Parts: sequence; C-alpha cells; structure tokens
Amino acid sequence: MGIEIHRGRDNAPAELMPPGGRPRKTASPGRPANRLDRWLARKLLQLIGDSGVQISLWDGSEVDPAVREPVANMHFRDRAALYETLRNPELNWGDCFALGRVRVEGDLIGLLQAAYKGVSRGKAASSLLKLVRWYNHRRSGQAQGSGAQDIHHHYDIGNEFYRRWLDRDAMQYTCAYYPEPEMSVEEAQRAKMDHVCRKLQLEPGQQVVEAGCGWGGFALHMAEHFGVRVKAFNISREQVRYAKQKARERGLDDRVEYVLDDFRNIEGRFDAFVSIGMLEHVGPKNYPLLGSVVARVLKPDGFGLIHSIGRNRPKPMNAWIEKRIFPGAYPPALGEMMDIFEPNPLSVLDVENLRLHYAQTLEDWLERFEQSADLVRQETDERFVRTWRLYLSGSVAAFRTGDLQLFQVLFTHQENHHLPRSRQYQFPGVRPQ
Amino acid sequence: MGIEIHRGRDNAPAELMPPGGRPRKTASPGRPANRLDRWLARKLLQLIGDSGVQISLWDGSEVDPAVREPVANMHFRDRAALYETLRNPELNWGDCFALGRVRVEGDLIGLLQAAYKGVSRGKAASSLLKLVRWYNHRRSGQAQGSGAQDIHHHYDIGNEFYRRWLDRDAMQYTCAYYPEPEMSVEEAQRAKMDHVCRKLQLEPGQQVVEAGCGWGGFALHMAEHFGVRVKAFNISREQVRYAKQKARERGLDDRVEYVLDDFRNIEGRFDAFVSIGMLEHVGPKNYPLLGSVVARVLKPDGFGLIHSIGRNRPKPMNAWIEKRIFPGAYPPALGEMMDIFEPNPLSVLDVENLRLHYAQTLEDWLERFEQSADLVRQETDERFVRTWRLYLSGSVAAFRTGDLQLFQVLFTHQENHHLPRSRQYQFPGVRPQ
Repeated sequence: MGIEIHRGRDNAPAELMPPGGRPRKTASPGRPANRLDRWLARKLLQLIGDSGVQISLWDGSEVDPAVREPVANMHFRDRAALYETLRNPELNWGDCFALGRVRVEGDLIGLLQAAYKGVSRGKAASSLLKLVRWYNHRRSGQAQGSGAQDIHHHYDIGNEFYRRWLDRDAMQYTCAYYPEPEMSVEEAQRAKMDHVCRKLQLEPGQQVVEAGCGWGGFALHMAEHFGVRVKAFNISREQVRYAKQKARERGLDDRVEYVLDDFRNIEGRFDAFVSIGMLEHVGPKNYPLLGSVVARVLKPDGFGLIHSIGRNRPKPMNAWIEKRIFPGAYPPALGEMMDIFEPNPLSVLDVENLRLHYAQTLEDWLERFEQSADLVRQETDERFVRTWRLYLSGSVAAFRTGDLQLFQVLFTHQENHHLPRSRQYQFPGVRPQ
Repeated sequence: MGIEIHRGRDNAPAELMPPGGRPRKTASPGRPANRLDRWLARKLLQLIGDSGVQISLWDGSEVDPAVREPVANMHFRDRAALYETLRNPELNWGDCFALGRVRVEGDLIGLLQAAYKGVSRGKAASSLLKLVRWYNHRRSGQAQGSGAQDIHHHYDIGNEFYRRWLDRDAMQYTCAYYPEPEMSVEEAQRAKMDHVCRKLQLEPGQQVVEAGCGWGGFALHMAEHFGVRVKAFNISREQVRYAKQKARERGLDDRVEYVLDDFRNIEGRFDAFVSIGMLEHVGPKNYPLLGSVVARVLKPDGFGLIHSIGRNRPKPMNAWIEKRIFPGAYPPALGEMMDIFEPNPLSVLDVENLRLHYAQTLEDWLERFEQSADLVRQETDERFVRTWRLYLSGSVAAFRTGDLQLFQVLFTHQENHHLPRSRQYQFPGVRPQ
C-alpha cells in the first residue's frame, strides 16, 4: 500500500480478550464483510471528516480504496470491533486498539490528529455523529471526583515505569518548555521549572508551598537553584516515598518537606504557591475551595502560579482516557479556571498558553516509551503497552490540533500592589524592577 | 488642621443646582448639626472602613476629630448633601461633589482610595452597607447597551477638551504602558502601541482591522511604524472626522481608512484584529457576537488583541461614573471576557494585566487636566471641571486599589499552529522564532 510505517506502528499479535477480562462473542474474522459492514465503515470515515484515513476490514477488503497516500490504515480484525467502535467511538475504539482488535498501519499520531480535526470541525454532522454526541454528552455529567482512589490508579502503577520515559533529572510528568526547538526533554523541563520560578520571583530564603508535587523534582529544583524552602503536598503514597528518598540522596531534605496530604489541609503562610499539573484532578466544583486555600496561605505580597491542561471551551474529558488512564480528570476552559480566582480576593496577572510545548514534550516521552516498549511489555503485557502508546500518541494529537491547551496562570492577592512593571523579568538574566 | 493640600484640591465656590438643573430644597447651611446628623456621618465613615478620612459638617463641627493626620476632610456644606449621600453614596456623593455641596480638603485620590478599600473589605457590614448594596444591586441589571447614543455622550464633548490633557502625539484615551517609571505619557503611549504591535507580530504590507479607533492615533502609528494598512472603525462622528483630518495631514490617508460604522459591520479578511478600549462599551451580552465577527474577519494565521478595563470579579459599574461619564459602560471580569472566545473557534494565547499602568496614565492625565482647569472652566463651568476631576481621581484610586484591572488578551484561531515559542518576541529587538 506504500504507507510509511512511523512510530506508533502496531503490528503485535491481537488478543481477543475485552477490557473487563470476560471472553466476548466476536464475529469470525474469516466471515467476509458485507454491504452493511462497508456502509458503516464509510460512516466512520465520515465521522472523522474523510481526512485521508483508510479502513480495511477483517476479510482484507478496503473501504474507499481511492484515498491516495493515506495518513494511515485502520484495520478492523473482527466485525464486532467495528460495531463496538460505532456504538461509542471515543471509548471503544481505544479499547479495541489496546486489545489488538484494531491495528493501525502507518502514522498513528497522524490518524488521531485527523480524527480530532474531523470531529471538531463537525463536517460529518450525520445522524451518527449526533447519536454519538448525545451518548457522550449523557455521560459527561459523571465523574470528576478527585478522590484519592483516582490518583492511586494512575500514579501508583510503579515509579520504574515512568522513569523509563520521563526526563531523567526531575521526573516531570507535566508540560516542558522549549524556548529553543532543539532542547532535550531534560533541558526543556529545567527551562519550564526556571520559567515558573522566575514568574514567581522566588528569592533565597523564601517559603514556597507546592500543591501536587509529583515525584518531587520541582521542589528539589526550587530549593537547589533558587535557595527557597519548600513544603510539597501530594496524595500519592508511592510518589511521596520516592520524593523523600531523592531529597535525602541529594542532601536537600532539610529544605524540602514532602507531606502526604491533600491541598485542602495546607497550613501556614508562604511567599509563593505553586501547583503544576494538579488542577486536572481537582474538579471544577472544587475550584473556589482551591482559591480560598491559596488566599489563606499566601502572604500578602506573595505570588501564585497554577499550571494546568485546559481547553478552548468546556468539553467533557475524552471518554477512553478518562476511563483507562485518568479516572476523574477534567481539563478546564480558561473561563472555568476563573472560578478559582473570582470568588476569592485574588487577581490574575498573567496567563500563558503553552500548548505546542506539551505536544513536543509528549513526542519526546513517546520516543523514549517506544525505546523501552519491549521492557515494559515483559513487565506488564501487550495490552498495557498499546494502551500507553495510544494515550501518548492521542495526547500529541490533541495538543497539536488544539483540542487541548496548556495554561499557566500567575496571580496574587487583589491588594498586592508590588507588581512588576513589565514581563521582561520572566526571561533569564532580568530582575523585576 | 495641618493637612497638606495636594492636587485634587477643591475649594471653588459651591453651586446649589442639582444635576437635573431644577432647584432643590436644601437645609439651611446655618442650622447647626444635631446628634442624628453626627451619628449618620459616623455611619458614613464606617461605610468606608474608618480609614483616616474625616468629616466636617455645615456648621463647622467635626465628626471623630480624634483622627490624627487624616487623609482628607470631607466637608458637607448642607444637611441634604449628607442625607443624599447616605441614601446612595456611590451616585449622590459624586453629584454633591460636582455641585460643590461637598468639598474635599486634602488628598482627593487618597480619600477615594480609602473609600474603595473600605467598601471592598466590607469592614462595615452594617445594616447601612447592606441597604446600600441592595440598592446598588437592584439597579445593576440595567443599562449596558452600547448604543451609539452612549458613545456620543462621552466622546463628542469636543475634541479640544481631550486634547488638553491626553498625550499630544496620538490622543490615546486608553491605558499607556510604562516599562520605565520615568516615561512621559507620550513615551508611555508609544510604548503601549509598540507593545501591542509586537504582540500582534505585525509585518509590513499586512492588513489590520481596528475596532473602536478613538481619534485614530493608533491606526496612524501602526501604518507609520509597522508598515501596515489599517481599516479602523468607530461610531463617534467627531472622532472619525478628527482622525481623517490627521491622516491627511500626516500623508497616511492612502494607508489608513477610517470607517464610521459599528464593529458588527466589518467585512473583509485581515492579518490582525485589534481593539483597544472598545470592549467596555460592548456589553457582555454582545461578547459572543464580537468573537464571531473576529473569527469571520481574521485570516487563519492572524492574531488578535483585545485591550479592556476589567475586574477581578463581576460587579456593576460605579453608579456615578456610569450615569455622569460613561453611560452603558461595563468593565468585565476575565471569566466574562471568555464569552468572546469560548463560543467561537478561537484560542486565548496570552493575558497581561496592566492595572498599575492605568493608575500612572490617569495620574499623568489628571496633572495636565489640573493645569488646564481654568481654561476648561471658562469653556464649560465649575461643575464640569469638578465632575472630571472626580472621575479622573476616582479612576486613579480604582486602579491603585485593584477595584479595576486592565487586561490585554492575545488570541488566534484555534487551528492556527504557527505560534511563537516564547514571549520574548514581545520585547524590543527580538523577532518571533
């Protein structure tokens, strides 16, 4: 077919076990596709906007074979996979992919980008799309809990797994910052941390509180390079254990304290508040509470920064990612984020959208993930590898197409009048006036 | 009393004509103040948070004379002025001030700052304050029309009046930008215009549309210094006439076209959309429409910027300013501004809050206004001078205390993927990568 195989290639043997583990009746792969099957496959192509994607079916037949130089071919290995995908594309296609019941030949990211673009443009405003939207809308009211259980689901998989593909220095599982395009992910994570520290105008001796500190790398960076003391909160036991160990190893445990607790329980008064990649797990109904905690613990002339995945407008989380990767996660629109600040005595000073930096971060992660895929497969299974491949590739596509955004919001108390004159202080070597 | 008299001094003779022009029964200034009068005056001091302001009454008696080094003394020259102020402080105090029935001895801006702080802190959660809040809330649903009539009210007073105190080069009646504290208002307005042009990444030969162009100075600046062609819209006949004349004088009328029309009627496709100080007159219910116009006329890789007075949270416009200065004006919270972008295929890239720059701009304007107050009084009357003195002083106080904010929001189409890597391009001498 003349398709170049990029990363994201998916040619491992299929497993026919559904996500729940129960065996499922599937149409025999051998039974030839009929006219209805092909008609439905064409509908699926319409749904993603006829954007250069091809479909082939279990009997080897191709749908719309006229597409020249297709982005990718989506191969349905059994009839049930097609029908399940049509019933709930967002959720079931991902599951079928993870199980190998759908294979992608060609550019997986390209295919997912085409799908994001097609669906967002709504070219295929067919009854099918309406049905799918209705179905997805019906379930959008659910979830968004931010319970400790959700956090365990994702972050307690095992630190070793994340170490294989995150940056080696600081284990930052959040958007990096590439002011220079050729930066490595290590350099870009350092640049991100420095960028945030400069925005916060950190000074040696200050007290910083971090809400949602991941594996603790940013807290160590602040202590080591900006001379501050940090109290860092996290509700993931695995991460806090790892972070404490690292702090001891690097001799920073006298300046960085990790606390296994929820941000709601932060006590004390701090010169700066920072939260990178926690808001996605907080849930919009808790935003005013988050803001009230910040207003309580931030000193009158302190600055705060919240860094979060976001949207151009409110939209439910992708169903598959929400179910298989991040239960309870929700990336807010900027208007929704204002519910943190507007009910509280806070003032927003600066918002920066770094969405393409997250696409680049994810590309770097995906490259390393693929390099260690064989190891990961040995430790887990093929389904796990495919699940994470799809998640990372889909996230690249989402940030590239603009389905997702990345907002850094800098703020202070509404009565803090000591504000920098220009934002030039946010760049290396310039101090605020 | 040892009070230094700053600018904002108000010792012109009182006029006892109410705003509507009808004579009003007032208590004889000669009749001594009684216990009720003094009790009510104390209530008024509580309302503004007992923040170092003194009150003296028509018989010369002082309320709370124990205040040491008062910020200012508010002298009620007749009993009715006190009662009218209590009935609706926000609206009636301003009118009494304009009529000279209330005089301020001392620092007018300081007094207004104290009032803003006191009321926003809500220290005096008395029944009086609740009553006042209820009264103001009741009327907050009104107005916000953005009709042409409102614009005429304010901007067609006469170009000569504004020329006396705005910057001499570009007649910018919007927030300037003072990256260096010692800048003159002329330098700061140039810096503001350059800052906006850099944010928009203007290139020679591009087509720019400006919505709400004032006296046209920014359009000329863009054409002259950034080599672009500009189509600039305004619904104020006086301003458009002035702008066209200036364009001819400066030989720029081949590159800058001024259109006497509403932003709704913009046609064509442009590389950049810019609007400085128009949003305040658009009204929140029209924000989605504004966004749809922008999305329609902005080229796929174009950038847009909206610069507007704003708030930390939704709040009705100050009643006096809304009634006497800017009918129909409304400064939105950032969350409300998102109604421009979120219903449309647009993406917010960058928000900058420049509130203290507006305080400084207004100080510069006020200084020049006071220098030409005698001339203005000759052309109009004492009440007009006092009205504008109060408006400019009150605005300094509002931006200093944080009652008002100034937001610049930079945005583009959601599908524009050619975004600068860092914001360093916004500073002189750096080009976007």
